[in-house]
Parts: sequence; structure tokens; C-alpha cells
Amino acid sequence: VLEQAQSLFPGNPVLVCASKGIELSSLKPMSQVVKDTLSSLEPRYAILSGPSFAREVSQGLPTAVSLGCADKNLGQELQAILSTKTFRVYTNPDVQGVELGGAIKNIMAIASGISDGLNFGHDARAALITRGLAEMSRLGVSLGAQAKTFMGLSGMGDLVLTCTGDLSRNRRVGLELGQGQNLEQIVSQMKMVAEGVKTTEAVHNLSQDLQVELPITEQVYRMLYSGKDPLQAVTELMCRELKEE
Amino acid sequence: VLEQAQSLFPGNPVLVCASKGIELSSLKPMSQVVKDTLSSLEPRYAILSGPSFAREVSQGLPTAVSLGCADKNLGQELQAILSTKTFRVYTNPDVQGVELGGAIKNIMAIASGISDGLNFGHDARAALITRGLAEMSRLGVSLGAQAKTFMGLSGMGDLVLTCTGDLSRNRRVGLELGQGQNLEQIVSQMKMVAEGVKTTEAVHNLSQDLQVELPITEQVYRMLYSGKDPLQAVTELMCRELKEE
Repeated sequence: VLEQAQSLFPGNPVLVCASKGIELSSLKPMSQVVKDTLSSLEPRYAILSGPSFAREVSQGLPTAVSLGCADKNLGQELQAILSTKTFRVYTNPDVQGVELGGAIKNIMAIASGISDGLNFGHDARAALITRGLAEMSRLGVSLGAQAKTFMGLSGMGDLVLTCTGDLSRNRRVGLELGQGQNLEQIVSQMKMVAEGVKTTEAVHNLSQDLQVELPITEQVYRMLYSGKDPLQAVTELMCRELKEE
Repeated sequence: VLEQAQSLFPGNPVLVCASKGIELSSLKPMSQVVKDTLSSLEPRYAILSGPSFAREVSQGLPTAVSLGCADKNLGQELQAILSTKTFRVYTNPDVQGVELGGAIKNIMAIASGISDGLNFGHDARAALITRGLAEMSRLGVSLGAQAKTFMGLSGMGDLVLTCTGDLSRNRRVGLELGQGQNLEQIVSQMKMVAEGVKTTEAVHNLSQDLQVELPITEQVYRMLYSGKDPLQAVTELMCRELKEE
């Protein structure tokens, strides 16, 4: 396999990653952690992310995703290899924007689960998703990503899927918080930790370092880690000072 | 009532409109039609739009909407009058952006209904919503609206609600098209015409005048008005040339 890969991509190894996240200890995004860890290999890095339930992809249902790759030529080669008639890959040179969207949307999935757990309805959830995307984009831009990436498949697309599609682990955490359970009870019932729980802590810490205001993340953090009452938290979010959009 | 209103807002009459649309004969947005029709009164115009199911608003569930008003001071006065603890109004000076979002999203609701009618799954719908917002924004900007308005409650928020919430008339039209019925059969079963059907025709005509490429609107138009096969239309949408996002 390695020989085959090397004949396809002579030169430094190519790494196509589908994992997104922010390392809690270093507050670095996954692409940076990978590059640091494998620095002696000088890998060429690409990240695949977007609205893609594995079950639907495997059933051959139409799916479109982003491929973040700083090297445009490599991005186009990978695009041609990875795309099929039903799995459509769109390139984007903004690696950090693509991966941050995939990571931060999990916080918004928890928030929308909380709203659903409080039976707040579709209007509130749509408002949360809208504000959530603005928050994702604001943090991303402050880290050097492009705002327009958050408008794409790996940003808005994945956010909408995760907040309105089947119940993901992250949304389930939110739903149960909204229904009155605390984090310890919820986590003890889950086989795998919902990654959004850790991402919330990492992004909360990042926002303090960067002095970026992230009101939804802040309230989710307080509910998860300080036992803040969900009804109180969501009410505070909704009743912020009235201003321009 | 008129006297009361005049004491609140001395001067030219204030009109807060919740209807959005594009007049088919003139291809003018509602705000312009109203201004032309009532030109002798020189009304001051505001448009209220956003993710708001009437049932949820009336139940006191949290809802946040945009108020498009070119006059900032008037916008703030109306914001204070219309907002309650659970109904939150955010001002936006971009009247045209607010109303266009509310109108064009109905085309995307038909498109997402078609996708659901073809059983294409959550991934395809999320991709359609993402591309749909880009298309809404592209048309809006070509008409003089602000791109960022489409990122807000009256754009993305309303789009997400309409494409993922309860089955609206527009989504129902799409769903039944996707399941193989034609427009005549569908409309004959409905008490009220879904406004997205007319909006699709108006926006199709506009896009030809303006030379703006609107691939989703174009395919919805062909399905509605030329009997194009939905599977073929959606397949063409998905299989467009692979490129950057």
C-alpha cells in the first residue's frame, strides 16, 4: 500500500485526515498537532470535513464535503481520487477554517440539544444555529481562518446537519442537560465521550486567551462545568441587549 | 388606532410589513411595490422577517427575528415596541436583504422537499441548504442587498427553519414533486398556492435579466414549469463540475 501510495504521490507523505478538534493542553488545532508530531516526515496535510453521516455515504446517498488543503495542486489530485458520482468533494485552501468548523459545530450541537431538551421549539433552535455560525466564524477568523469557509459545507453545512439531523452524541448530551441531568450522570451513561464536551472547554480557554466574545460557548461551558441551570443560561442568551444583527 | 399611531409616530405613516415576495409582472420586491403604490403617503417602511412559526410565537416560545428598516432611529423605536421577553427583534438597515431572504428561501424549501421526496437523506439536504444560502446571497447582492444580511436571522435562520422544521406548503410541493406528482396535480390539492411556486418563476426571470447563475432555482423552475424529472434535476445539481467551494 505504501509503495502504491508513493507511486501516486512521490515526495513527502500525504495525509488525509477526517478528525477535527482542538488539543486541550496546547489549544492547537489537529492539523498543527499532526504536523508537530510528524515534523520529521514533513507530511502534506489535507482535511476532509462536511455534512456526511457515515451511514448515508455508505448507502450511496448524495453527499458533498469540503477538502481543506493548502497545496492547490495536491487538493485537486485528491479531489479527483476521492470523488464519486454521489460523494462530491470540493477543495478549499483554508485548512484551518475547514477543521475548525468541524470541531466547533459540536458545541453548537450541544446548545441545540439543550434548547430541544427545554422544549424551546424550532424557532429557538434556528436562532441558535444562526448565532452559532456567526460565533464559529468569529473565532475562526481570530485564529487566521477565512470567514467564507464557515459559509460552506464544512461550516454551515455540517452545523445544520448536526443540529437538525439524527441525534448525535453531542446533541444527546445537550438534550439530557436540558432535561435536568448533570454532566457526570450523562457521561457515565455513554460508551464514548461526546467530543463537544472537551471542545467546549478548549474553545472557552481559547476565547479567553484571544479575548473573543463567544456567548453561546460561554453558556454551554457554564452548564457543563459549573452546573449552571440550562433555563437560566438559555434565557440569558435570548435576552442579551437588543441591538443590530 | 390611527390617532394613537400618529401620536406614537408623528409625521409620515409607518408601515411594518411581514409579507415578502417579488411581484411577477414587475419583478420588484414587496417594499418597492408598497412604496410605489402608496407613494402619495410617503410611508416609512419596515419589514419583519425571520425564523418564526406563528404557533411557537403565540405559545411564548423564544423567537428571534430581523427588522429591516432603513431609518435607524425608527428601527430602534419599533424594536423597543415589538420586542418582548421571548420575542426578540434585531434591527438591520438592509430592508432589501431582509425581505429577499424571506422570499427566496421558499425556493430552497421546495428544493429540500424534492430531495426529501427522493429519499436523498440528511447529507444531501444539508448540502442543498448550504448551496441554497450562497445562491440567495448572490442574487441579493446583485440587487443591492448586503451579503451579511443573508447570514442573519432573516436569511440563514429562516432558511434552516423552513427546510428542516415542520412541513410548510413549499416543502410539501417539493416533497410531492420528488415523489412523482406534477405541479398541476399538487396545486389542485392545496387550498392556498405555495408562494415559492410563484417566487421561483419571478427569481428565474430576474436571474435572466441580471445574468446571475442560480443553479438550484434553475432546476426547481424546470421541474415546476417544464416537467423536468426530479431525479435528473437533482443529479445534475450534485454532479456539476468539481471545483473550489
